[in-house]
Amino acid sequence: MKAMILGADGYLGWALSLRLLSRGHEVIGVDNFATRKSVKEVGSDSGIPILSMENRVRAVRDVHGYRMKFHRGDITSYPFIHKAIKEDMPDTVIHFAEQRSAPYSMINAKHAAYTLSNNVIGTINLVYSIMAVNPKIHILKMGTLGEYGTPNFDIPETPFVDARINGKLDRITCPKWAGSWYHWSKVHDTNNLLFTNRVWKTTVTDIMQGPVYGTRTKEITDEKLHTRFDFDEVWGTVVNRFCVEAALDLPLTAYGKGGQTRGYLSLEDSVEALRLLLENPPEKGDYRVVNQFVELLSINEIAEIVKKAAKRLGIDAKVEHLENPRVEAERHYYNPEIKVLPKLGFHRKLKMGDLAGQLIKDILPYRSRIRRYKGAIMPHTNWRKVDNAR
Amino acid sequence: MKAMILGADGYLGWALSLRLLSRGHEVIGVDNFATRKSVKEVGSDSGIPILSMENRVRAVRDVHGYRMKFHRGDITSYPFIHKAIKEDMPDTVIHFAEQRSAPYSMINAKHAAYTLSNNVIGTINLVYSIMAVNPKIHILKMGTLGEYGTPNFDIPETPFVDARINGKLDRITCPKWAGSWYHWSKVHDTNNLLFTNRVWKTTVTDIMQGPVYGTRTKEITDEKLHTRFDFDEVWGTVVNRFCVEAALDLPLTAYGKGGQTRGYLSLEDSVEALRLLLENPPEKGDYRVVNQFVELLSINEIAEIVKKAAKRLGIDAKVEHLENPRVEAERHYYNPEIKVLPKLGFHRKLKMGDLAGQLIKDILPYRSRIRRYKGAIMPHTNWRKVDNAR
Repeated sequence: MKAMILGADGYLGWALSLRLLSRGHEVIGVDNFATRKSVKEVGSDSGIPILSMENRVRAVRDVHGYRMKFHRGDITSYPFIHKAIKEDMPDTVIHFAEQRSAPYSMINAKHAAYTLSNNVIGTINLVYSIMAVNPKIHILKMGTLGEYGTPNFDIPETPFVDARINGKLDRITCPKWAGSWYHWSKVHDTNNLLFTNRVWKTTVTDIMQGPVYGTRTKEITDEKLHTRFDFDEVWGTVVNRFCVEAALDLPLTAYGKGGQTRGYLSLEDSVEALRLLLENPPEKGDYRVVNQFVELLSINEIAEIVKKAAKRLGIDAKVEHLENPRVEAERHYYNPEIKVLPKLGFHRKLKMGDLAGQLIKDILPYRSRIRRYKGAIMPHTNWRKVDNAR
Repeated sequence: MKAMILGADGYLGWALSLRLLSRGHEVIGVDNFATRKSVKEVGSDSGIPILSMENRVRAVRDVHGYRMKFHRGDITSYPFIHKAIKEDMPDTVIHFAEQRSAPYSMINAKHAAYTLSNNVIGTINLVYSIMAVNPKIHILKMGTLGEYGTPNFDIPETPFVDARINGKLDRITCPKWAGSWYHWSKVHDTNNLLFTNRVWKTTVTDIMQGPVYGTRTKEITDEKLHTRFDFDEVWGTVVNRFCVEAALDLPLTAYGKGGQTRGYLSLEDSVEALRLLLENPPEKGDYRVVNQFVELLSINEIAEIVKKAAKRLGIDAKVEHLENPRVEAERHYYNPEIKVLPKLGFHRKLKMGDLAGQLIKDILPYRSRIRRYKGAIMPHTNWRKVDNAR
């Protein structure tokens, strides 16, 4: 199949490019390198060094013999994305080209506006390009389980649900409550995409993914092929951050009481799930919602897992509970369904407990590099504080 | 009170400016004149001629003796709106500064992206400016009843509702299903504003208004004080368009079967309701939702009302049912609550049946002006067709 990956330079985008190439798919990468710039903006960098895209493309050829095409550009420009899709005629467009950090979106007015506008408009331009070129192209869109917040109902894998409201039954869009501008931008995307499905019968897989962690996939066999690895308070997800803290002999910084529960998965499991969804698209005109995670864990449970893994490596990690900079429930019900991926044959390879030790070991060689950005690990971005000076 | 009106040059914005000035409030108008430009873009113009803002401000002083302040600028620029709010320190900001046409938003990718970005980012900049200057400022925001679509439940005047979903009870944001990018932009605004209320305790009145019609308010006593009056397929709401069609001896262009029911109100009633909401703000930190309309009518009922009113003026209007260019239910349940405004003492002045004749008469002197834009009356914008060439 011919797959275009928007955001191919990113954490998932790069790892998925390698997976799809290894499966014999044609891969066309697209990126504007915004993440590289935005991570530097907050005084940080990828903890594990990565090559430039030019050299990545070369390394893929040298190491594995795969050819990968790449376009540099910004999908918030309609002419750019329209031209790319018209030129390459992909079967599937995988859309990762969104600002993906919740704290970054909460920094101030500028970052909020950038996140909302970049994410919403990019998706709009993508859909219009597809409608102009070939309405049958499958859109594989990265959403987030965070779109739902932490509801009292079981999170289904359907865009609509039956609900009884003041005694009347109706079919409604599945309720969402997001916790940051980043998360809201994904809710807006979902609503917008559902609308295009209704009026234009677009073919969409909307992936509600939990936080991803890890450094490796089967194809990352050479350091030239590393994918980026973020660990700071703005760009690092909690597991990667905890492992970096353990590797650096820093306390694990848990926010609030630590009861916040989410669905986690490893980079390898994420990439494999995405491959399955790409190779098994929904019917033309269908809108498929997929909950993508492999285990539900609380912050406290993750801290324990990382602590134990560190101990086996001779590191005595402590957990420090910081005042929660975010506005979120710290004890709550959480039960997302997971039926679509298993039906496609998905089995998780790794649990966090099996992988955490390896992850810490992978970080150890880069400790001195990461220490340069130590100041970026502790939380600076506070949900309750509006700081337009920053 | 000190009121800043974003979109003061618009249909409602100008009429409300006059109402608030007549009540002794200080009024600071803000506009970027986007509507004037966008109406010209689709080959149309205000059916009733209006003065430039400079001359409007002068006319208000000459006719009524009121002084009105005005800033030209675009609220999608954070520095602009922040400066205006800091300089003028309003008690209330009335936010009408959004692209307000559903068909305009559906023209193509560019118009979709403009609508979503303009509306969402303007609102974000407004909230951040208020948080930076004075978090207690009351935001009176124009939403639309169209955010809900046509649900089977009774549309409440609360941002959240209790819902039973797959056997579990939860408190959810009131379900929405919008019918165009314009309507979705307002849904996104509502979600975003609700989030700011949760994290920052913003004080918001979110007005879910139905379509407004008419040319007059108490203060529009001189032709120099006219507010704009749009009638074309893109910018005119259905009642104003039907009355223009009657005045021009054209058939009334009803879309589809004509069972589409909405909550309508006259310009006078809209302006009076807005005044009441401004003078009776919610408690600080509260999020008040208001359904704003005075009567529920279907397209067919409106066509009958306009037909009868035309007949009394000796005009024999015919109704022509066109293929519906929109994607919407043409028969449906519709029952929005209306409790907030009556509690504040709101009584409707006019029903459509009483006003339609006057409205047609007000249009008659401008028939030859309006005929110049006749080509803009019939529907060109089709919801089902993506036309990126236009």
